[in-house]
Amino acid sequence: MKDLRQVTVIGLGLLGGSVGLTILRCFSSVKVIGYAHRPQTRRKAKQISVATEFTGNLKSSVKGSDLVILATPIQTFERIFKDIADSLEPHSIVTDVGSTKVLPHLWAKKHLPKNVYYVGSHPIAGSEQRGVEYSRDDLFERADCIVTSAKDTNRKAVEKIIRFWKQMGCCVKTTNPSEHDSILANVSHLPHITAAGLLNCNKQNHLEYAGKGFIDTSRVASGPPNIWVDILMTNAANCSKGISKLQAELEKFKKAIEKGRRNKVEKLLETARNKRSELIKHKLKSKELI
Amino acid sequence: MKDLRQVTVIGLGLLGGSVGLTILRCFSSVKVIGYAHRPQTRRKAKQISVATEFTGNLKSSVKGSDLVILATPIQTFERIFKDIADSLEPHSIVTDVGSTKVLPHLWAKKHLPKNVYYVGSHPIAGSEQRGVEYSRDDLFERADCIVTSAKDTNRKAVEKIIRFWKQMGCCVKTTNPSEHDSILANVSHLPHITAAGLLNCNKQNHLEYAGKGFIDTSRVASGPPNIWVDILMTNAANCSKGISKLQAELEKFKKAIEKGRRNKVEKLLETARNKRSELIKHKLKSKELI
Repeated sequence: MKDLRQVTVIGLGLLGGSVGLTILRCFSSVKVIGYAHRPQTRRKAKQISVATEFTGNLKSSVKGSDLVILATPIQTFERIFKDIADSLEPHSIVTDVGSTKVLPHLWAKKHLPKNVYYVGSHPIAGSEQRGVEYSRDDLFERADCIVTSAKDTNRKAVEKIIRFWKQMGCCVKTTNPSEHDSILANVSHLPHITAAGLLNCNKQNHLEYAGKGFIDTSRVASGPPNIWVDILMTNAANCSKGISKLQAELEKFKKAIEKGRRNKVEKLLETARNKRSELIKHKLKSKELI
Repeated sequence: MKDLRQVTVIGLGLLGGSVGLTILRCFSSVKVIGYAHRPQTRRKAKQISVATEFTGNLKSSVKGSDLVILATPIQTFERIFKDIADSLEPHSIVTDVGSTKVLPHLWAKKHLPKNVYYVGSHPIAGSEQRGVEYSRDDLFERADCIVTSAKDTNRKAVEKIIRFWKQMGCCVKTTNPSEHDSILANVSHLPHITAAGLLNCNKQNHLEYAGKGFIDTSRVASGPPNIWVDILMTNAANCSKGISKLQAELEKFKKAIEKGRRNKVEKLLETARNKRSELIKHKLKSKELI
């Protein structure tokens, strides 16, 4: 990507920091401007060199950049779009790494200038840890990245963003914002809610009896609540639908167990096991798991 | 344990095989008799030497043993107790590695001779893999093992079984069968049902969008359905209660998300996160996690 000279990363947490580190590794001679609101975050980010320059000034941070990447909680996007709108370079591209896509597309359309192109990105990478100190330059290696575009999204910008994430190590998939949010509700947001629900329905002293299974099943619930509340609230309708679906699946188990329908319970378990086996096969084939 | 000379392991799957391997490592000069119904299983078990002797004859397999350990699916326990009752040595101890404990205690009382002592054991170890070929001699290292006894259980036998699992590398906890089944329903059986439910409410082609979070959350659902249907059916009332509890926790999320109650959702996520953080601290302190 020889037309990429300067990138601004807004928000330096685990994801923003990892985006910075990965750009510096994968694109030679690209300048990375890292914006963080808090001086302490900028200090930490500087120590581990996740960008070439650091600033606490949002407007000036985007000046001269061909690409601006938002890596802050989703609820801040609308305000940030408004704040940077006048400072963005003509024909520059704005994207983000948020986990929901319908609202970001809506806000971008509302607030960004016509000659700036917004494309949605959702790299499916991260961990339950938070903070720039956990940044890694291999976080995106073999991770899926879903690039979203609406009917009126600039095609060239979409192609550039696809090339960008591929060069960052991702396996890129494309879809529209509403399909993205509906699928992700079930494969990501619902499992998060469920992990939290499982913890919340156990007494703390009973959890001492938990084995490795429970520790894995509940891992995602250690993710930062302020990030996750954003994800759930910006995908409310899909999450609510997903919860109802899971409640119905649980009801099937409950009924079958209560009625002593052994074959039915075993069948439910087998269906799940086969689905997971297909999933793992697919992930191995696409080299997302090795 | 100088009074331990011969142990019979009934059932040579991942758990039975690992019990055999671990006894051979932790107790010098103890003879291990491995019983498996299928010749193919005995052949595989022999190849990796999970016991000193192998047999397909259930009754004779327990002769001369001070300790008999059942490592077959729980639903087979009652029949096995009946079959071995007349061949067990006087004052020998019978235990098992099953995941529920109320019914095994009941069946033992009903079918085992008065001069043979049953104690329940539940080592919380295993994996989603199955088959003797996955046996490991470090599977029980630092794992919790819950030893269960009822009011009329022989005290000396309980003490012996506690010593046995400690020497196998476990961290031993003790309780009664009904408390065991009630706690385990929530920390183990319910997560299994939930993982299966999460898979079952997703379309296969949508699962391609799943990230590492989903893969961890759903891992236990790859466990063998025939083993798990046994666990769930022998702990039906507690499982059904657990499902209702989780459905109620999910309902809290659904209501709060639908009503846009951001603070409430964040609080639910924080409670879960704090609980998991306490759990991890406890597991690190007790060296179950390192």
